[in-house]
Amino acid sequence: MQSWQLPEHVADVLPTNARQLESAREQLLTLFRVHGYELVQPPLMEYSHSLLTHIDAGLSLKTILVVDQLSGRQLGIRADITPQVARIDAHLLSANQGINRLCYAGPVLHARPEGLLNMREPLQAGAEMYGFTDIRADIELIDLMLKSMKIADMGEVLLSLGHIGVFRALSDAAHLDAEQSATLLALMQDKDTEAVEAQVKAWKLDGMWAKAFSLLPRLYGGREVLSAARERLPDLSAVGSALDELQAVCDAFPNQKVHIDLSELRVDNYHTGLLYAAYGSNFHDAVARGGRYDGLGEYFGRARPATGFSFDLRSFIGRLPAIERQPVVLVDAEDAEAAREAVEALREQGQCVVVDYGIEHNASEEVAGRLKKSDGVWQVEKI
Amino acid sequence: MQSWQLPEHVADVLPTNARQLESAREQLLTLFRVHGYELVQPPLMEYSHSLLTHIDAGLSLKTILVVDQLSGRQLGIRADITPQVARIDAHLLSANQGINRLCYAGPVLHARPEGLLNMREPLQAGAEMYGFTDIRADIELIDLMLKSMKIADMGEVLLSLGHIGVFRALSDAAHLDAEQSATLLALMQDKDTEAVEAQVKAWKLDGMWAKAFSLLPRLYGGREVLSAARERLPDLSAVGSALDELQAVCDAFPNQKVHIDLSELRVDNYHTGLLYAAYGSNFHDAVARGGRYDGLGEYFGRARPATGFSFDLRSFIGRLPAIERQPVVLVDAEDAEAAREAVEALREQGQCVVVDYGIEHNASEEVAGRLKKSDGVWQVEKI
Repeated sequence: MQSWQLPEHVADVLPTNARQLESAREQLLTLFRVHGYELVQPPLMEYSHSLLTHIDAGLSLKTILVVDQLSGRQLGIRADITPQVARIDAHLLSANQGINRLCYAGPVLHARPEGLLNMREPLQAGAEMYGFTDIRADIELIDLMLKSMKIADMGEVLLSLGHIGVFRALSDAAHLDAEQSATLLALMQDKDTEAVEAQVKAWKLDGMWAKAFSLLPRLYGGREVLSAARERLPDLSAVGSALDELQAVCDAFPNQKVHIDLSELRVDNYHTGLLYAAYGSNFHDAVARGGRYDGLGEYFGRARPATGFSFDLRSFIGRLPAIERQPVVLVDAEDAEAAREAVEALREQGQCVVVDYGIEHNASEEVAGRLKKSDGVWQVEKI
Repeated sequence: MQSWQLPEHVADVLPTNARQLESAREQLLTLFRVHGYELVQPPLMEYSHSLLTHIDAGLSLKTILVVDQLSGRQLGIRADITPQVARIDAHLLSANQGINRLCYAGPVLHARPEGLLNMREPLQAGAEMYGFTDIRADIELIDLMLKSMKIADMGEVLLSLGHIGVFRALSDAAHLDAEQSATLLALMQDKDTEAVEAQVKAWKLDGMWAKAFSLLPRLYGGREVLSAARERLPDLSAVGSALDELQAVCDAFPNQKVHIDLSELRVDNYHTGLLYAAYGSNFHDAVARGGRYDGLGEYFGRARPATGFSFDLRSFIGRLPAIERQPVVLVDAEDAEAAREAVEALREQGQCVVVDYGIEHNASEEVAGRLKKSDGVWQVEKI
């Protein structure tokens, strides 16, 4: 075992990528700011009790747990920032009864990677809106998500839409109990159409519901899916509302390539309504995911409608625009003191000036020239 | 136990401070860049074997340890970034035989806070130079450390200097064994002059060394301490070199308030030479600390001279310049679609434009006006 060896799914970010990532982070925070989203920085470590709300058991598998040396209680290293931001909206910013727009960009740790190609230290960036239940809130967030994708070269971005409300409405109308509903949801999430059909048959569900559940995994495709769903799914008001919301989103982005999938329910368990995701060309999975999660704030003392998205900014590495590496100006060590004013003036302008001690030079650095005094003035002389 | 309660010495950073901190981070990374320091981002989590080198046992008390679910081996959440950067210089950037200038800014976690007033999630920022053993390297880093302090209002900054070489030279010359040396160092670190005297007496050290060790904790003060040390400490060449280095630093910063303390050795165990720190007015402890640590790279396969400093950027909170909160422009939800181009143009210019859905407004936001169409042009009308 070498001392320099890193664990699996853990990596250093070296200078070229680090500068690109830093620049992308700045652009992203500026984008969020001009849309009115306020930056918050919740801690990396909290009581596991706070990080793992009762409504997302899946998160506990991803969260690294340790014992607090101060309190003896269980701490977690956050695996997701959204519940922390919900806590801040519910508790710390509770004076605001109106809309809170919040954003963040910070590391999270996963005990296990989410997939073979994922790292265990995503740089989770995202934006959330609290206090507004209307579909226009989701549309604002989808707009911001799509704008965020433009920071990198994603090829053509596909907006994927789903709605947990359709499944929930059918599940309620068919009087499934909680266990049945969870079983069926898991099969849907696995996209296992045959297993769904076999399951509703085994339960001897009323024909209408059996048919509807079997149909759900087949309702995917372009914008036309919505009219097909309206025609073929049972006429329930909750199904209608969900389809209306999906329609509103489609209408708000007339030029956007859209994919609708009514059984695409692979989301965090805290989601309660519209689901949205952005896919890039050549990405193995969704780049960004989001949705409505109206129940989460209640856990922290204030029930608030909420919608938001997040993504791993580190997954943008390799697709970020190259940053022109500015050639450096050298100043000989023996001149450094005398040239101090000229050196600091160049640095003020953003020019990188490096003291040359006569040690072998870093060959990867391009050199613009050397600061030398000529006619009483310090000037950059080409080498 | 409330779900929103945070562990001791853990805190959220809310919008006002978060924006200031983000701005300070950007300024700092720009400062590092124009001085030729390349950004690296090592991971939060590594094998504890890599994070905890054999030469710094103190770090293991601060480091949170967990079992890797993938390998079954022990992982640590980093409590210090410097050993990671030494690893990167030694292993990943080993093609460069010359000087490597590296910098970083990222969170670390401490199992226990370093003091009653410290948080357990410092945002550690720092810069390191590898490959140059000369005192001019330390001087360059001290200059950068002092410039970094200017990002916040620190009052008058005091540069504190020490040198582990003086103690080591005396310890070698007096033929102390490793255990004795460690015992005496601990007493020095506690500034316990009487205990030092009692200890050297108990060991029946030769009078010259007993006198020198007893003198060391008294050699502190302004620049004049150096001549006093030269006069009163044994004439050893290693003591002379250390004092020469301290003199060179003093000469390089003629207008800087300097404090020299030859028993100020409260440093990480990896330090091997000159020690430097910056104190601000009204700070309970050093704001930034650094020094020479020539031995660390060897652990990662390449022995390299090294010097650098780091500090907790979050400790700057409360001393950072206020960021003028830009008044927002509102656009009525019903106008948002028609005004899209005008809205995006304003946002491009850095103006924050928020869609107004008629929900109660966030009272803490100052409003510049409302975007309305007049004479066929979208204009910001004062409210």
